[in-house]
Parts: sequence; structure tokens; C-alpha cells
Amino acid sequence: MSEQRSLSGHELKITSFINEIGDLNAGVMADAIQHLNSLTKPPGSLGRLEDIAIRAAGISGELAPDYGKRAVIVMAGDHGVCEEGISAFPAEVTPQMVMNFLAGGAAVNVLARGARADVLCVDMGVNADLAHEALITCKTRKGTGNMTREAAMTRDEAAAAVLGGFELVARLAGEGYRMFATGDMGIGNTTASAALCAALGGMTPDEAVGLGTGIDEERRLHKVEVVKRALACNRPDDSDPIGALAKVGGLEIAGLAGVILGAAAHRCLVVVDGFISSAAALVATALAPKAAAFMIASHLSQEQGHAALLRKLGLSPMIQLDMRLGEGTGAVLAFHFVDAALSVMREMATFESAGVSRE
Amino acid sequence: MSEQRSLSGHELKITSFINEIGDLNAGVMADAIQHLNSLTKPPGSLGRLEDIAIRAAGISGELAPDYGKRAVIVMAGDHGVCEEGISAFPAEVTPQMVMNFLAGGAAVNVLARGARADVLCVDMGVNADLAHEALITCKTRKGTGNMTREAAMTRDEAAAAVLGGFELVARLAGEGYRMFATGDMGIGNTTASAALCAALGGMTPDEAVGLGTGIDEERRLHKVEVVKRALACNRPDDSDPIGALAKVGGLEIAGLAGVILGAAAHRCLVVVDGFISSAAALVATALAPKAAAFMIASHLSQEQGHAALLRKLGLSPMIQLDMRLGEGTGAVLAFHFVDAALSVMREMATFESAGVSRE
Repeated sequence: MSEQRSLSGHELKITSFINEIGDLNAGVMADAIQHLNSLTKPPGSLGRLEDIAIRAAGISGELAPDYGKRAVIVMAGDHGVCEEGISAFPAEVTPQMVMNFLAGGAAVNVLARGARADVLCVDMGVNADLAHEALITCKTRKGTGNMTREAAMTRDEAAAAVLGGFELVARLAGEGYRMFATGDMGIGNTTASAALCAALGGMTPDEAVGLGTGIDEERRLHKVEVVKRALACNRPDDSDPIGALAKVGGLEIAGLAGVILGAAAHRCLVVVDGFISSAAALVATALAPKAAAFMIASHLSQEQGHAALLRKLGLSPMIQLDMRLGEGTGAVLAFHFVDAALSVMREMATFESAGVSRE
Repeated sequence: MSEQRSLSGHELKITSFINEIGDLNAGVMADAIQHLNSLTKPPGSLGRLEDIAIRAAGISGELAPDYGKRAVIVMAGDHGVCEEGISAFPAEVTPQMVMNFLAGGAAVNVLARGARADVLCVDMGVNADLAHEALITCKTRKGTGNMTREAAMTRDEAAAAVLGGFELVARLAGEGYRMFATGDMGIGNTTASAALCAALGGMTPDEAVGLGTGIDEERRLHKVEVVKRALACNRPDDSDPIGALAKVGGLEIAGLAGVILGAAAHRCLVVVDGFISSAAALVATALAPKAAAFMIASHLSQEQGHAALLRKLGLSPMIQLDMRLGEGTGAVLAFHFVDAALSVMREMATFESAGVSRE
């Protein structure tokens, strides 16, 4: 049982926005299935491409929505837990990589160009003063606290970060964006994500903790101990997602949970990237189970907790490239499959039009 | 031990072409690894995209080859074994679908447009008289014989079909094509592919036989019996790939084996589609083990024997969409990943250029 709480203004707004999340349009989904079965292929033989087409119809209310305007939202934040020596890279890499995203030189920029997606970079809580005309700033604080000694952030800071992600998507939906990929940057954020998996996903720290950007097994065992200490210090409640996010989460993870909720409320398709994005999805669906229908998984990360986390979310990855970079790199690759699914809906011949015999 | 054979002209040519297949360029591969490790990402964190980039360098001898000119080669053939009632679709669908490919209305056309690939449709042995200005004709005979009662084709016909695929790629390489996807069309061809898996891949008929384009379990068990009868009738020798192809293979499978060998000999990258294409890859690598280095797998088909066949080939699929259509639909989707890998090589910033700290 979670304790009685008086909700802050931020939390009240989140609750109200969550109520906007609707169901998929079953009628248009049935039309989509009928159309797919008229096309020159054995029924169901395009597998999950067909599922994507049906889902997109249910989300958009259109048989083949135009997802031409799409973005990967890369949210960055720093993590106080880096003091515990859990990452292969120094914390200064977070702001350096933000500038790399803004200059167009990171992996996600390259892959997003290939998928005709905009890269929108958001400072959710980088521990540095960043300035760039293309940077979106939604900064609640400069990095989280060290969760082995204190809560990563206050409850209201966590709620504000979720709301920030939600409101960003609301604005982007108003500008015509209809499909999003989630992306993350934050040295230390596999540790926070693993702690959230333990807090909200029923996983043990040892199941949830992986090698991150490239530590060895000895350091992974240290990271497991760090997560255990964070959980012991903060005692997150699995029935209180905002509380867990505040105690052992991260600012960019909170923001991405908000992005997912915002996409669902504005009937946009959201493609979930790897381990950190999936931790955000865990928070989002804990807050609003209906949001799950608006998400699709992209790839199976090499990060060891990801497979179990996806199972918990009821999601199946489409891509298996042994990637472990984050940034939204797996999710933007999956945009190609969404495009493929929608092209099938729009362009394939029917048995009738092509004069092909049915079974 | 295979019996002493005097090779036909076709087989002598194949032997001579196979000798042209060289090794990957280790020096350029080492350069590619060095370049990848200088880019702003943890080493190896782009997983198999990095492997693709390294392989493309080894194949082409260039750090980031231009694979702009690419094609999916869809080979069609009919199967006498259809008399045994092993498919959900009537045999007349093979020529009908060829006309659909040529009109641009099939799934592979739609997905190939998305991947900027040409669809080249080849009549390797359709049991109909087909005429279309864009159709490539390489017809040895009109469909195979019923392999439960006789050899699917003669040894020389099988060799001629392999050679046809090889020579087509030789011509296309001369026109500037440097990357190929394999695709198939042929009602009954999962049965022939399963028989080849048993003949050359060490699989039992029950392991190799799946549901094809959509039969039920009862009919699958009938299909297993059909494959057993074909093997008992023909007794293929696992040390004689051309002989096995002649006895229980198919004309389009033979052609695709030739395409793979041709791609290897002309230092092109070849992306292998699903079950039928993988059976062709089994034949190709049995003839020329060096050809394996020029192939990458694309997707894991829902056809049940595919996973075991890929393991036998030492290939790992990158895409898991539960597709079971053939035509090259999975392979053309993988072109997006090759593009992604090469864009990473060309466009990503280095740690030095972006001012990002290393681990």
C-alpha cells in the first residue's frame, strides 16, 4: 500500500493528462486487417509488419497514416551515482555528447538522417551550463543526487520532469509530428534504469544490472552492490511510480516517461529504444496502462536486463543487432519498418487487381 | 564418398568460376575497425552494424563502399511436387505472381522501393510461357519433375541453372551493381528447400518441414512424408551439392545458389532472405565455402526449419518480424541496416573532432 499523498500541481496535471489517453480505434483496425488480407500475399505472411500497420490504424484512426513528420527525442541528464564508479566513461561525456548531437555527429544523428527523422535534443538535467540554439531546455536540476546516499531527486522534481516530456510532445504534436522515437544520453543511466527495474519491474539487481557502455564483470558486480545500496537507502514503493522515479530514477528517464505518455495522449506512435527507454516505458505504463498500446519496441539491446524488461512490458523486439549505445539508435532503425508497413498498406496490389488466385 | 563423375561443360564452368572467389581484404578490415573505434561511441556498441561495416570493407577493399546500385533478384520456378498437395496455394500462382512482380504490385516491390533497390525478376523455370519486357529469362525447363517419383531435374539442368544465376550477377556487376538481395517465388519451394536441408544440412524432414504459406499441422505431416518419399526415391549424396540440387531441389533455388556464388566471385555483398534463399546458400557454401564471407543473413523466417538452417550456415538473423513470404522481402529490409552501417563509417564524428572524452 502506498501512503496517502497530497499531490503537487505537477502530479495533478499528470493525472489529468493521463485521463486523455484513449483506446485504439477498433473499427479502423478491423478495416486495416481486411485490407491486408486482400493483398497479394498469404494472410499474415508479413508478420509483425502487418501488426504495425494495424496498430498505426488503431492509433491514428486512418487506414495508412502519414508519419512523414517524425522525430527522435534524445533526452540527456546526469547521475549523481557516477560518484560510485559505475561507468566506463567520465560524467563529463554527457554534456560533450549533447553538443555532439547538436552538431549532428553522433550515431543517432547519422541513423536518423537515414530514416528521415529530426533529432530533438533535450537538456533534462545535464550537470553543466549548455547553450545552443537548437537545444531544448527542460531542466529541473543539474543532475540527480547520489541515490546510494539520498533520493535521486524530490518527488516534485520527478513529476516536473515527466510533465516536461509530456508538454514537449504536446507542442510537437501541434506542429504535426505524429511518430516519435525515444532516446537517452546520461553517463550512469543504466544504473538508474536497473534500479527502476528492481523497484517497479520485479527484477533482482543482479538480473537488471549489465555492462553498460563497457565495464567488466568485476565492475558489474560492484554496480549490483551500488543498486542494492540505492534500494536499501531509498526503499521505493512498487505501487508508486513517481516516487520510485524520484528515489532511484533519472531526469532523462522521467522526461522519456512523459514523452511516452504524451505520445499516447496525442495519439502518436512511439518507438521505444533500448534499456533506458524501456525503463521509462515501465514508469509510463505503471502510471497509465493504456499508454502501452501506443508503444512498439525496436531492438533487443545487449544490456542484459533488457530482454526481461521487454517481457515485463509485453513488448517483442524486431531488431537484433547487439547494440548497446542508447541515444535512440535502435528506435530510429525501426522507423524503416514502420515505413515498410505503411507502404504495404498504400502500395501493394490486391488479389483482384493483380489477377492472382487465392488459396 | 561420391562416385567418380565426368563433369559437364556447365559444371566445369562452375568449378572455374568458384576458383575466382577470393578472401576478404584483411588490411582494409583492420582500417575499418580502427576507424570505428575512433568514433563517438563506446567501442563495439553499434554491435552488428559495426560487423557489417567491417565486412563491407573486407569485401569491397574500400573503407565505406558505395552500395547505391543494388537489386533484389527474385527468381521464380515451379515444382512438380505440387502434385502431392503440399501447398496452400495452387501452382498457377507462380506465373501470376511473376506478372505481379513485373507490374510492381507485390510486397517485395513495395519494400524494395523503400530501400531504393531494383527488383529484377528472373524466370528460372516457371511452368508457363511468360513474356514481359522487364522479365529476365534463364529457363532450363518448365518446372521440375515430381521428386517423389523421379529426380527434380537432370544434373546438367541443375548445373545450367546455377550457372545462369552466376552469369546474371556477372553481367549486373559489370553494370555497377555491388549489393544484392536474394528472393524467391515458387509454389512448392518450401518442400524442395526442406528436402535440401535434409540432403545437405543434416536435418531430419520433420525438423526441416514447416507450414509454408499457410498449411495446418495435418498437412505439414503429409509434407514431411512427401519429403521422406522424395529422399527415399532419389537418395541424394551429401558430398555432392549439384547432385542433391538436381534430385530434390528447384530451378529457382539453383539459380539463387548461382547468384550467391556470383556475388562472391565479383566481390559484391549478398543479403540472404528466408528459408528458400538459405537453402540456396547451403548449396552455394557446400560448393564454395569461401562464398560464406560475402553473405549476411537478414531475417529469421517463421518457417520452422529456418533457425536451424541459419545455425548450420553460421549466420545470425538481424530482423525478427515473423515474416514467411519469401520474395526477398526480409533481405531488402536489411538493406536499411547496411546503409546505416556505411553511413556510420562516413558521417559520424570522432572523439577528437567532437571533443568527447574517452573511457
